[in-house]
Amino acid sequence: MARLVMKFGGTSVADMKSIRQAAKHVKREIDAGHEICVVVSAMAGTTNKLIEFCHDASNIHDAREYDAIVASGEQVSAGLMSIVLSEMGIKARSFAGWQVPIKTDDAHGAARIIEIDPDNLLNCMAENIVCVITGFQGVAPSLRVTTLGRGGSDTSAVAIAAAIKADRCDIYTDVDGVYTSDPRIVQKAQRLAKISFEEMLEMASLGAKVLQTRSVELAMAHKVRLCVRSTFDGHDYEQDNSNDQVFGTLVCDEDEIMEKQVVSGVTMVKGEAKITLRGVKDHPGVAAAVFGALADERIIVDMIVQNVSDDGRSTDITFTVPNSEYDKAMQALESTSNRFEYDDISGSKGSAKISVIGVGMRSHAGVASSMFNALADKKINIQLITTSEIKTSVLIEEEYGELAVRALHTHYGLDKNN
Amino acid sequence: MARLVMKFGGTSVADMKSIRQAAKHVKREIDAGHEICVVVSAMAGTTNKLIEFCHDASNIHDAREYDAIVASGEQVSAGLMSIVLSEMGIKARSFAGWQVPIKTDDAHGAARIIEIDPDNLLNCMAENIVCVITGFQGVAPSLRVTTLGRGGSDTSAVAIAAAIKADRCDIYTDVDGVYTSDPRIVQKAQRLAKISFEEMLEMASLGAKVLQTRSVELAMAHKVRLCVRSTFDGHDYEQDNSNDQVFGTLVCDEDEIMEKQVVSGVTMVKGEAKITLRGVKDHPGVAAAVFGALADERIIVDMIVQNVSDDGRSTDITFTVPNSEYDKAMQALESTSNRFEYDDISGSKGSAKISVIGVGMRSHAGVASSMFNALADKKINIQLITTSEIKTSVLIEEEYGELAVRALHTHYGLDKNN
Repeated sequence: MARLVMKFGGTSVADMKSIRQAAKHVKREIDAGHEICVVVSAMAGTTNKLIEFCHDASNIHDAREYDAIVASGEQVSAGLMSIVLSEMGIKARSFAGWQVPIKTDDAHGAARIIEIDPDNLLNCMAENIVCVITGFQGVAPSLRVTTLGRGGSDTSAVAIAAAIKADRCDIYTDVDGVYTSDPRIVQKAQRLAKISFEEMLEMASLGAKVLQTRSVELAMAHKVRLCVRSTFDGHDYEQDNSNDQVFGTLVCDEDEIMEKQVVSGVTMVKGEAKITLRGVKDHPGVAAAVFGALADERIIVDMIVQNVSDDGRSTDITFTVPNSEYDKAMQALESTSNRFEYDDISGSKGSAKISVIGVGMRSHAGVASSMFNALADKKINIQLITTSEIKTSVLIEEEYGELAVRALHTHYGLDKNN
Repeated sequence: MARLVMKFGGTSVADMKSIRQAAKHVKREIDAGHEICVVVSAMAGTTNKLIEFCHDASNIHDAREYDAIVASGEQVSAGLMSIVLSEMGIKARSFAGWQVPIKTDDAHGAARIIEIDPDNLLNCMAENIVCVITGFQGVAPSLRVTTLGRGGSDTSAVAIAAAIKADRCDIYTDVDGVYTSDPRIVQKAQRLAKISFEEMLEMASLGAKVLQTRSVELAMAHKVRLCVRSTFDGHDYEQDNSNDQVFGTLVCDEDEIMEKQVVSGVTMVKGEAKITLRGVKDHPGVAAAVFGALADERIIVDMIVQNVSDDGRSTDITFTVPNSEYDKAMQALESTSNRFEYDDISGSKGSAKISVIGVGMRSHAGVASSMFNALADKKINIQLITTSEIKTSVLIEEEYGELAVRALHTHYGLDKNN
């Protein structure tokens, strides 16, 4: 017997048919003898509609009221899931965030979970009742309802799994796992059976979009094993319940992965713009001044590269922002140029960031250089390079993006055979 | 300065335009220096949609989950009202039932309010914050969300008014008050400036549909003065704030009404079916047996008339049920005829119940007989008669219904002059 958290996203509870399909997965795990907590998002589309209501009501609305309104969506899906489970003969009850309680800070709209009291959930499970918990929300010390921000349901699921010491947290979604690359770009992309938390973090923040970065961080911190799998995988579990593990990707501690891939995945983020400041006077605080000017405008900077200065007195700084922020970023730098000196500023839109990710890089020399070679073979020019312990990213011209991803996917032996 | 509860029904918060209109009424009262608690229903249509979801999920759904789902509707409208008020420069915050708290019993789907703790509301009002409270819902001792049943928002408003000792509870709706009769039938129907609780109770339960019976009972018990008024009365209060009292009907204690009308209103309920049992053996318990058989089938009986027996051994019993329950009622009686003896059973659909209501009846003799004369003048045959202290009802053939209502309205001097 294991204790599982099963989280179903918005598309998995979008309508009654989907909710019934999701409930079948719950039944399968119950029948296998497991203890279950379910976490649900709002029905797909509901949260957006509620947010629209708030914007219609006022452009500057109280975040506490926004939370009270938006949190209603999960209440509905949790109740409906409980009803459907009951109809299948499974004892179930819904819990709103405040009923668990999932205690958060009072940062309405983007609250952080402080503590989850597991007693109510454990008591229910001890009576063989499936707890169906609203994702994405909690309750502030003021007893007002809070939400965790978009994608917060994954975070709720992981936090609950940590609180009840679950053996695994299954994230049911509309894809069946984490792939070595985007299958729309790389036809031969393969689903990974396992991936480490660290790799998943890099994948999540680099555009894989399967799991929220924040939930992976939390899972890593609390050693909660995550499984990404599809609600709609079409597999007939009633006929074959032998090896359900193969139908998804397990995100787990590196130690659990016997055979570590040098490279586990290749990702791409398009729509990057690069900006270069040349001849920036090289003295302490200059980087802070540059990026402070951007932060003041709430512009999120992605890659940053600063070369050593040629003459010890000035340096070049290049960084990337989303295309949509390019004009704003240029303006911000020009209007605050009194804060720091530079010779000239230039930039362009239309780049793509390509990354190769793998914990194996730590122990394998030459991954980066072999990446550059593979790109050179395809005559792809590299504009920028940044590296971390388990990832190497390059910025290239956007139109070469898919070509680069496919070339690297093949180069690192990730293509599936058939 | 007065303390007011202002309740807005589903049509008054149906969309952002209506919510803004409702909020203007709140602003007017705030500007007049009053302390305000607002109670809102769900946006029109929302509750029905949520109930439909529950039915789609399962025909036999857990009432606790039904409540959790359905109660979400008021959360949204309360939040939106708070946002709109804030935008108008009025400090406001929403309260869900459990946040007040509005404590109810655990009869999910039709809970009764046990106690409302006024402290949170009073503290808010002391800080000039308008409390916007979800109607129709509360929290059970188990800390699960309850709903009060359809129309429960009026009841919530009255209970809150009692708890905070409000000077008045204003029920804003889509009609501008209580009329002497249904204006669709009687063109010369007039809005009543005042009506007593007792009369309103008779009006509410006889088809006036303006206020829920239950809320009037509660208002009478706690002496909460109610004012029925329209959200959309088109009156420019900003230009003329002098005599807002005239734009509605005050439901109050009889003592507050100086000049009591003999008859305050004439009402009609169509679609009644009458059933007569002839020659029922007249011994103790026979009425209990007859109506017990109907209660077992959950058939609601309206008028009941039993004549004294001719011979001291048998009697005739006639009663009415809604047309839609007629067949079921006949079956129930025939299949349980072993419980009591009678000579024969007969009945027919297609009657209307016409009632005249007025506290003045208590002190005026001859109201009933003058009613019968007025009907006889129009050649309308009376099938059944029942009376209470402040009302006389007759059953007549349905097609004479409108004629009867208009004749009585004129007869008792209720027609307006122009």
